[in-house]
Amino acid sequence: MSVSPATVILQLICPDRSGLVSELTGWVSANGGNIRHSDHHIDAGAGLFLSRIEWQLEGFGIPRDAIAAAVKALADRLGGQFDLHFSDELPRVAIFASKQSHCLLDLLWRVRSGELPMQVPLVISNHLDLESVCDGFGARYVHVPASRDNRADAEARILELLADYEIEVAVLAKYMQVLSGSFLERFPTVINIHHSFLPAFKGAQPYHRAWERGVKLIGATAHYVTEELDDGPIIEQTIAHVSHRDEVSDLIRKGRDTERLALARALRMHLCRQVMVYGSRTAVFA
Amino acid sequence: MSVSPATVILQLICPDRSGLVSELTGWVSANGGNIRHSDHHIDAGAGLFLSRIEWQLEGFGIPRDAIAAAVKALADRLGGQFDLHFSDELPRVAIFASKQSHCLLDLLWRVRSGELPMQVPLVISNHLDLESVCDGFGARYVHVPASRDNRADAEARILELLADYEIEVAVLAKYMQVLSGSFLERFPTVINIHHSFLPAFKGAQPYHRAWERGVKLIGATAHYVTEELDDGPIIEQTIAHVSHRDEVSDLIRKGRDTERLALARALRMHLCRQVMVYGSRTAVFA
Amino acid sequence: MSVSPATVILQLICPDRSGLVSELTGWVSANGGNIRHSDHHIDAGAGLFLSRIEWQLEGFGIPRDAIAAAVKALADRLGGQFDLHFSDELPRVAIFASKQSHCLLDLLWRVRSGELPMQVPLVISNHLDLESVCDGFGARYVHVPASRDNRADAEARILELLADYEIEVAVLAKYMQVLSGSFLERFPTVINIHHSFLPAFKGAQPYHRAWERGVKLIGATAHYVTEELDDGPIIEQTIAHVSHRDEVSDLIRKGRDTERLALARALRMHLCRQVMVYGSRTAVFA
Amino acid sequence: MSVSPATVILQLICPDRSGLVSELTGWVSANGGNIRHSDHHIDAGAGLFLSRIEWQLEGFGIPRDAIAAAVKALADRLGGQFDLHFSDELPRVAIFASKQSHCLLDLLWRVRSGELPMQVPLVISNHLDLESVCDGFGARYVHVPASRDNRADAEARILELLADYEIEVAVLAKYMQVLSGSFLERFPTVINIHHSFLPAFKGAQPYHRAWERGVKLIGATAHYVTEELDDGPIIEQTIAHVSHRDEVSDLIRKGRDTERLALARALRMHLCRQVMVYGSRTAVFA
Repeated sequence: MSVSPATVILQLICPDRSGLVSELTGWVSANGGNIRHSDHHIDAGAGLFLSRIEWQLEGFGIPRDAIAAAVKALADRLGGQFDLHFSDELPRVAIFASKQSHCLLDLLWRVRSGELPMQVPLVISNHLDLESVCDGFGARYVHVPASRDNRADAEARILELLADYEIEVAVLAKYMQVLSGSFLERFPTVINIHHSFLPAFKGAQPYHRAWERGVKLIGATAHYVTEELDDGPIIEQTIAHVSHRDEVSDLIRKGRDTERLALARALRMHLCRQVMVYGSRTAVFA
Repeated sequence: MSVSPATVILQLICPDRSGLVSELTGWVSANGGNIRHSDHHIDAGAGLFLSRIEWQLEGFGIPRDAIAAAVKALADRLGGQFDLHFSDELPRVAIFASKQSHCLLDLLWRVRSGELPMQVPLVISNHLDLESVCDGFGARYVHVPASRDNRADAEARILELLADYEIEVAVLAKYMQVLSGSFLERFPTVINIHHSFLPAFKGAQPYHRAWERGVKLIGATAHYVTEELDDGPIIEQTIAHVSHRDEVSDLIRKGRDTERLALARALRMHLCRQVMVYGSRTAVFA
Repeated sequence: MSVSPATVILQLICPDRSGLVSELTGWVSANGGNIRHSDHHIDAGAGLFLSRIEWQLEGFGIPRDAIAAAVKALADRLGGQFDLHFSDELPRVAIFASKQSHCLLDLLWRVRSGELPMQVPLVISNHLDLESVCDGFGARYVHVPASRDNRADAEARILELLADYEIEVAVLAKYMQVLSGSFLERFPTVINIHHSFLPAFKGAQPYHRAWERGVKLIGATAHYVTEELDDGPIIEQTIAHVSHRDEVSDLIRKGRDTERLALARALRMHLCRQVMVYGSRTAVFA
Repeated sequence: MSVSPATVILQLICPDRSGLVSELTGWVSANGGNIRHSDHHIDAGAGLFLSRIEWQLEGFGIPRDAIAAAVKALADRLGGQFDLHFSDELPRVAIFASKQSHCLLDLLWRVRSGELPMQVPLVISNHLDLESVCDGFGARYVHVPASRDNRADAEARILELLADYEIEVAVLAKYMQVLSGSFLERFPTVINIHHSFLPAFKGAQPYHRAWERGVKLIGATAHYVTEELDDGPIIEQTIAHVSHRDEVSDLIRKGRDTERLALARALRMHLCRQVMVYGSRTAVFA
């Protein structure tokens, strides 16, 4: 990944009107940017224009440090909001886990193999079980006991850690704890993997309930976390076939693969800035 | 299909105990039956044994007319319930439709091409739109207006038709009407296609709600109809990928393919007696 | 489909260089075009830039009749090639069939239901079997016997028909005949459905060979036809699961569904001008 | 896994004739065996009967040590061949790897999480790269340099290791070396993962060739190894969607997931004795 030439990635959402594609790409080109990807989406119902433009940093006429300010002026003119990212900056991500290792390990492996452009300086867990899993991956494992009774304290401690480690994204890799609205206000970029095909089987024990319902497919959903449980914008969904032969334990086993895949794909698309959230939905330019 | 030698298909459910596979297959063999398929499933939690045995009619020692009585004695001994079917008998099926043609047409085509071993002497619809669709397929099209206000009358008329035409199975091919519990008591074998991945989006307008929720996969579910809406035993589920580019109308378009496939597969498996219902679940020996 | 406002769709391929996205979209906007979709792809290895831009016809400053000339001047300046299409023009498509009806019928249905924006004035077959299938769909069915011995004559007759009926696209819906290179030179836009997951099982009897090989998945491939058999640019591929229980006849049955889906999707994307061919590959902006 | 009561699994292949299901299951029951699974398949073309019967060890009338001899007598009587397995015996498996870690790590994780009922005392590699990957998994890592020039010596060394470690199954987890016919004669049970949808792209660099061909789906195939390269009986195949945006490196990345899944599923089915090989095909009772 690091061998690709560095690029600038702009994500912008603004009210739709004629001429926006041309105006945005014209601005990049006028400043000497060599555009590599240019994706746009109009949500006619919402009256919104979404744009993702990626261009080479080398040769761009505006100095790296000044790009954000220049883009802000552009976005203000369009009445829009933006995110700006440089592909050679690896975001600092914290992984939250509980007792199940499969998603945590899968993400750490993918980082090591170069599939996920990020750093993982911090792993937070409400249990001690997975400490050894992180060995050799360079992440500090911090045990923050969490339960319904001490949630406020635990979240305060976690927010402190996220600040200390300068974390940009939190990934709930089977964390099994609900984060409060006040937590999310202070740290909004959280990606979760839920072990069902949302909106089916929100909440606890989806595999048990899927078995009882007798479904023929199970699923997993990676989504941004919002205060409303299992209701945030969906990034990716995967499924697996099941049959009457499968016990709940088989659903759990098969589900681990769909969970790992959905979470890894969603996170990669997020890190590559291919996901744009608007309202309760996402546009995914992949 | 008609060229395969005729077979006898026995489906039996009884309390589980040791020796049942041997006892059942031994009974078939002892009577000269050449077994072609033998599938069994034990639901340990429910304490149930499910069995599907298919053997060649030719050479079987019990006369065709006497097989049902002999099987009944066997099932009684095991405290079980059974269904018996001869593969050379084409069940008489009624298709229920409303205004959308895709499932109706798909089923008629599959019958003609030999994919679905059944006859369709009767098509019932609460609208006139699809009458011409049935031309050339040999089915009588009967218009039975149905609305919330006249449901009892409409259902009475439909039950009459089902009796007159000696219908064994009703298929709701996008019928869009709810059947009452009393209807189902009198005519229990009804297969429906619901245009969502149940239990997500039960009820009305699942594609609109799927679009609003921003899912990345849509689905269709073929299931046996029970009094509780969209809650009957699931036979087959299919999915299709969607993206932010897809409007509700695209979900509807893509959904038609998943609906057709799920319904056709489920119906074929039902007709081939590969589906066994127990409690709210199915075992599918396919 | 016809209710959407008419759009202009430009597909352009040219040598890659900096500034092309901006230049193309700028040209559209400068002429008053309200862009609805703007998709681009750079094939770095081939040094090619591919672009698909769709804008509203209403309000565009260049008169409909003059757009092609204006675009030609633009494309010439960029050293590129282009296709121009108006969404309110329904292309005239000929479907070629042989004895199997499933793909032919599926396409005719989809036209009638509004899924495929095209007209089908002509169906060509080397057999008489499917004539009645076309009843009620408004297509003329022309029987052109074809075999290895009379291929030149048959192709001459077909080219005449394609000219007479002003056909733009030919779709081989299980036509089972090879078209010669000289035919393709004179009529190049031909889409075929091959009943395997290309490049596996090129040529004859792919299902028989798939069964013998013992594969666990079968596939279908919709592709543009080139002189080299089963080697043209791929538009869409679909798969179906098979098991040891499936005989060759089951593969053929299951395959019909994958064939129908792959062909219908590919054709729709072609008609919506979402497919661009370059070299032996396609970019699909869907 | 270890908590399930131990079972006996019998796999038997013999010439087909009437009465076999009854005879086999009758033999189990007559000896007090409580059958949990009973699956059979008749290959009419080959005239073969395949059977997999699984029953509880506890309560079975024949002593564990004597079951093999008793089954042999039964199989001889039927002119068949059999495999016998006890579910509480964990087979000793050697994993062969080269430089890529994803399949090796995936398998080790699945063993640790209880998904794969096996032991891995030995990892063989022709490179040193992955030695540290095995840390903490209890496998000895043995470096056996292998190239075209020293194949005979390398294979001799490997056969020695397989014997010393009492290995029953070898899994080629991206081993990238061809095993000779004489090796396979002496150690026949070898499962390989090939990174294409066989029979497409046999041999070297399938992802490069898939990219050049412009396919829309890539695949992976887990199969038993035979002397003929990439031609052995297929156990499992998986696929992933690709688009024109994907470079060869993206195909390789996406392919890793399909490879891991296909290999893990195939190996699990092999270990659960759900796979039966006959001729160049497999029956998979899963």
